[in-house]
Amino acid sequence: MGSGAEFDRIRAIFAQLGNRAAPSGDDCAIVTVGGERIAVSTDLTVEGTHFRAGWLEPNEIGWRAATAALSDLAAVAAEPIGVLASVAVPREWSAERVANLMEGVGAAAAAVGGVVLGGDLVRSERVVIDVTVIGRLGTVVGRSGGHVGDGLWVTGTLGAPRAAIRAWAAGREPTARSRARFAHPVPRIAEAAWLRDLGVTAMIDLSDGLAADAGHLAAASAVACAIESERVPVDAGADRPEDAVVGGEEYELLAAMPTGFDDDEARRFQAQFDLPLTRVGVLREGQGVTVLRGGKPSALDGTFRHFE
Amino acid sequence: MGSGAEFDRIRAIFAQLGNRAAPSGDDCAIVTVGGERIAVSTDLTVEGTHFRAGWLEPNEIGWRAATAALSDLAAVAAEPIGVLASVAVPREWSAERVANLMEGVGAAAAAVGGVVLGGDLVRSERVVIDVTVIGRLGTVVGRSGGHVGDGLWVTGTLGAPRAAIRAWAAGREPTARSRARFAHPVPRIAEAAWLRDLGVTAMIDLSDGLAADAGHLAAASAVACAIESERVPVDAGADRPEDAVVGGEEYELLAAMPTGFDDDEARRFQAQFDLPLTRVGVLREGQGVTVLRGGKPSALDGTFRHFE
Repeated sequence: MGSGAEFDRIRAIFAQLGNRAAPSGDDCAIVTVGGERIAVSTDLTVEGTHFRAGWLEPNEIGWRAATAALSDLAAVAAEPIGVLASVAVPREWSAERVANLMEGVGAAAAAVGGVVLGGDLVRSERVVIDVTVIGRLGTVVGRSGGHVGDGLWVTGTLGAPRAAIRAWAAGREPTARSRARFAHPVPRIAEAAWLRDLGVTAMIDLSDGLAADAGHLAAASAVACAIESERVPVDAGADRPEDAVVGGEEYELLAAMPTGFDDDEARRFQAQFDLPLTRVGVLREGQGVTVLRGGKPSALDGTFRHFE
Repeated sequence: MGSGAEFDRIRAIFAQLGNRAAPSGDDCAIVTVGGERIAVSTDLTVEGTHFRAGWLEPNEIGWRAATAALSDLAAVAAEPIGVLASVAVPREWSAERVANLMEGVGAAAAAVGGVVLGGDLVRSERVVIDVTVIGRLGTVVGRSGGHVGDGLWVTGTLGAPRAAIRAWAAGREPTARSRARFAHPVPRIAEAAWLRDLGVTAMIDLSDGLAADAGHLAAASAVACAIESERVPVDAGADRPEDAVVGGEEYELLAAMPTGFDDDEARRFQAQFDLPLTRVGVLREGQGVTVLRGGKPSALDGTFRHFE
């Protein structure tokens, strides 16, 4: 639903809509059809806000925009059905560039079992792409089910997308590794289903960054998150380790797992998905997020706000 | 799915996606969930392409964008479940303006029994609003079921939105009537269900204008449309009668009805919905659209291309 302050703002706006609105507060809204639950979410990517011209190839813009939306399905452990992509491009874009962008959308959907269901195409000064995702939902997984004592686990490794943005913003080319992490993120759909099957109590994707999204999970679950910064898995493409805690634009998952879930289970996860699953903290009584360094609270928190 | 040439272009792009894409060619894609069919569609509105700053109040921008998408549900006679609205606004927009825009979205959805299911909110230089609609579908109504001999019927009265755009583009204030028709269109949801129950064979909404959308219906049904221009109901807010044939941005319906459907039925429609239902032509063997004036083909055809 967008990053920190924006999220708060849109929630306030939805609240004003009263009974005309039915937002879930989680990454997806849930609709029941024919006795089955479907999860829906939408994610808007705008040139100049989420990326700048020249950073990405058209197929990467499409892939990344689709992944940002598909990652919302991962956060609730839904199985993708399909995506709708509304695209606005400048007049000078050729049909081939538009096709490449849509190919990126289609490839991202296909990689997790979805199809392109439809879309819209208009002209605009800046590139805009809005992707709506629809998925089948089994057990409802949200942000609000975390319990005191649950371990906090993170998929993958963090911090590289911020390094890529920093390089571009400084006029440098990012490293291949950080560039790939920014341009070609992977929605953790199968991983989410695995975590759900092993009893995940609350889950969220890290589009706003670990510290901020832990804050959303803590607030929804009415608990506190304690994160040990030394445990946070730093990606090889990161240039500053703190980006693993506060950098955003990640599409990994933060999962609260019950106390029985341990490193043996995490090794099974790693073997199955070729992806680390790392315990980074615990849910405690209280509220908010504390990032511990050497066992003591540090100042590493707050919300990632794109690159503006 | 966007206007004429854009429609053709996006179809070509979807075709390139091969089996990764599943567009329906109709106004909505159809997904089966739990044995029920749902219809989904998305419609992107961009400042500078669909309207200009100063033309509309924020709540009108929201209403109009939602109606553009909801009208796609009307075209397939689906019953709205809800909408998702992705919104980008310039930095100088206050929270109140954003709330007003979302109120417009919520009001348009509520007016036809839907709710706001979710959304996204980001910053952008220009206003962008993408609305995705989800609805329940009974009998599948599409563009492709029209038969030779079916009558072509239009709901409401046409031509006023183009008059409003023409006035604004010339620096004048539009008349109250034409302004209202542009700013506050109504998706014909209940009317579509009525037409479906009386055997509609093919239907489309008039977002591209009567002549262009008749062309889409003709192509999908593999027939020709013959439209008698004298029969086309011209709105009191229109300043040029030909806008009723070629002006776009209408959200009325064009319906192909079986031969038994006559003016008596249309009067029942008018009595129920306080809205005209007018026979404007017939489906014939052949292809394309012929607009007849005094029984002879005229040059009134082609696609509306916004105001660019």
